[in-house]
Amino acid sequence: MTKPNRRDMFKVGAAAGASMIAASARAAGAPSAPPADNAWSNSLGHGVDSRPYGQPSRFEKNVVRRYIPWLSPTRDADASFTPLQDQPGIITSNGLFFERYHSGRPTINPDQYRLMISGLVRKPLLLTLNDLMRFPSVSHIHFIECPANGATEWPAAQVNSLQLTHGMIGCSVWTGVKLSTLLDEVGVAPDARWIVASGSDGAHMDRSLPLWKCLDDCIIAYGQNGEALRPEQGYPVRLVVPGWQGNVNIKWLRQIEVSKIPAITREETSEYSELLPSGEALGFTWVMDAKSVITFPCPEKPLQGGPGFYEIRGFAWSGRGKVKRVDVSVDGGKTYRPAKLDDPVLSKCLTRFTFPWQWDGKPALIQSRVTDETGYVQPTIVQKHKFWGNDPIYENNSIQTWQILANGKVNNVQLS
Amino acid sequence: MTKPNRRDMFKVGAAAGASMIAASARAAGAPSAPPADNAWSNSLGHGVDSRPYGQPSRFEKNVVRRYIPWLSPTRDADASFTPLQDQPGIITSNGLFFERYHSGRPTINPDQYRLMISGLVRKPLLLTLNDLMRFPSVSHIHFIECPANGATEWPAAQVNSLQLTHGMIGCSVWTGVKLSTLLDEVGVAPDARWIVASGSDGAHMDRSLPLWKCLDDCIIAYGQNGEALRPEQGYPVRLVVPGWQGNVNIKWLRQIEVSKIPAITREETSEYSELLPSGEALGFTWVMDAKSVITFPCPEKPLQGGPGFYEIRGFAWSGRGKVKRVDVSVDGGKTYRPAKLDDPVLSKCLTRFTFPWQWDGKPALIQSRVTDETGYVQPTIVQKHKFWGNDPIYENNSIQTWQILANGKVNNVQLS
Repeated sequence: MTKPNRRDMFKVGAAAGASMIAASARAAGAPSAPPADNAWSNSLGHGVDSRPYGQPSRFEKNVVRRYIPWLSPTRDADASFTPLQDQPGIITSNGLFFERYHSGRPTINPDQYRLMISGLVRKPLLLTLNDLMRFPSVSHIHFIECPANGATEWPAAQVNSLQLTHGMIGCSVWTGVKLSTLLDEVGVAPDARWIVASGSDGAHMDRSLPLWKCLDDCIIAYGQNGEALRPEQGYPVRLVVPGWQGNVNIKWLRQIEVSKIPAITREETSEYSELLPSGEALGFTWVMDAKSVITFPCPEKPLQGGPGFYEIRGFAWSGRGKVKRVDVSVDGGKTYRPAKLDDPVLSKCLTRFTFPWQWDGKPALIQSRVTDETGYVQPTIVQKHKFWGNDPIYENNSIQTWQILANGKVNNVQLS
Repeated sequence: MTKPNRRDMFKVGAAAGASMIAASARAAGAPSAPPADNAWSNSLGHGVDSRPYGQPSRFEKNVVRRYIPWLSPTRDADASFTPLQDQPGIITSNGLFFERYHSGRPTINPDQYRLMISGLVRKPLLLTLNDLMRFPSVSHIHFIECPANGATEWPAAQVNSLQLTHGMIGCSVWTGVKLSTLLDEVGVAPDARWIVASGSDGAHMDRSLPLWKCLDDCIIAYGQNGEALRPEQGYPVRLVVPGWQGNVNIKWLRQIEVSKIPAITREETSEYSELLPSGEALGFTWVMDAKSVITFPCPEKPLQGGPGFYEIRGFAWSGRGKVKRVDVSVDGGKTYRPAKLDDPVLSKCLTRFTFPWQWDGKPALIQSRVTDETGYVQPTIVQKHKFWGNDPIYENNSIQTWQILANGKVNNVQLS
């Protein structure tokens, strides 16, 4: 593979951008005079805030989590979606991080919180939150994605929205205790191979995890993006299983039970397993395979300035490690060219990409395609259907196609 | 220098932690029975939120920005401080990111926002926010620190608080347009050497910057941590000057004027210059030299469990690049041992460090000391006074000493 010369590509983009923006800027006002002073330049603003926890600008009131009314039978077992179309960098704001509950979000008093570690261990433990915070800690940036992210799009392009097709993902700094540290502490029996992690929400959400993953990179997290975990993310404590399905990242964590075999819970049979065309059910599809999506332009963010230069932007990620490259197509996948990746590029973390594009004003089909460090290449929806059949729910990591219309509007489409 | 064997150190820490925590856990309850189910485990929680922009748990209501009442004459020209004692990872929550205003926080309608780029340029520009967002963009993680961070501590240890001695710093993902891209666009004259950036707040806050820095890594930012800039951070647009004094990161950015010489504004004479003992004034002390501080334990977070294992935690940063190492002393600086650095370690960004400590229950003096990739070593306050004299305001990056008392309480002290 020829190494792409990103510097040259970027130069082309910037040069193309120059002429376009110059025209736009001329339209905006006479550039020889400084901007007129507005009221806010001739008065005192607000002093140091009497509400000492800050909030977004009131002009950003439409940047919120949203949900799909027809998707879930009740609000308590519903999900809401991150507005990726308004997320400029790799960190998801805590106020906008997607939610998914099986029985609603419990309100837990941290003084009453306890974490039990039990089962095939030498010395079971019951920890308070303060106990947990005394242990050696780590802090790393990882995405968490629901495997149902994109579920509506398996049969067809159904929802004309980036937020509602791709918004069941968020990326945070997670701080807490390595699960391996706690397992060292309790002393795991030689014949133990699994754990079962369960939550203290009404659903007692529980999932089995192989011991090798627990000893690798799992975090019992109490911190998220500069503060305590948010209530909808498991306050005061959740399990973070980097790169694996969101539902195994047990929120409101109550118990870790060490065992010889997996528990095969309700969540591993009626949910989060997948019936294949062969009639076999696929269990434990833990790893979130590599995926990417263009966040600008998208249905919520059309091209508003007519033909000219635009920067295509998006995110890519992989549950198996780092993003190696992202390629972008503006002709429906016939040809791809490499995008630029922004630093930092971290393992099991969102990576931001950009791609300069001179739009000729004609209809176009734009796509992004990620390759991760294991060599895995993001598949098309047609390739996905070959293995998964026609009516799956989970693991839709297929290439997203956005159709650009001549008027700049953007539609969600699927290519056959 | 011998490379520290961090793996072995960590093992010692974890082993020491084990016995301590086991004792604590036994005190917390009988470990052979699972935690009793609480009300929240036997009921439906809240459904998907009717307030679609999320908020912290109500149990975290004391984690807020705070200010020093006696420090500033008016609230409009005041500052509030980040609660670093409650910041678990390197990203500062937008709701907790410190504020500093010279004439209050303006409320700017983004539709009326304009940015002028003028002066010694071939083609001046007046840009709308949408124009700005069309340009090629970048997104990087950087700290911003006010040079007055620690100002109260120059003459003596005056404020017994981590938040109020070190909280004029925050670290975010900043997304926007490289200033060099815009300067390419307007065409800088061959004899230009400086710019003057000014804000649209009532103070028209303005600072001169050398052209070389503008062409290096400065960002005209509109995005912060997954959403639009917060109002107190310059909504809708600020200048980000990685690693340099907070005040040159002009908020509510209104104009960039390209020039031959610096403007020597009020902000570069009456403020943000430093009178030295020699009688000379030191101007343009832009770069924030390397600094570190222990965030646990600290005055707000004492040692609450008696003698035993504790993990010392903190942050280090440098305006000149990456943190190379952090060393921790528990004997008032007589001896230092290396701390463990958490990934990622990024340039001009907070780096998190941890250090395992077996506290014997006796009074102790704990310190952290950073070395950055240029080889610069964080100085003591005594070393700082030698150059800066006895009554400076800015650039106090000296080593912080916390005094641990036998009862676990923590005091801010200075060693002579």
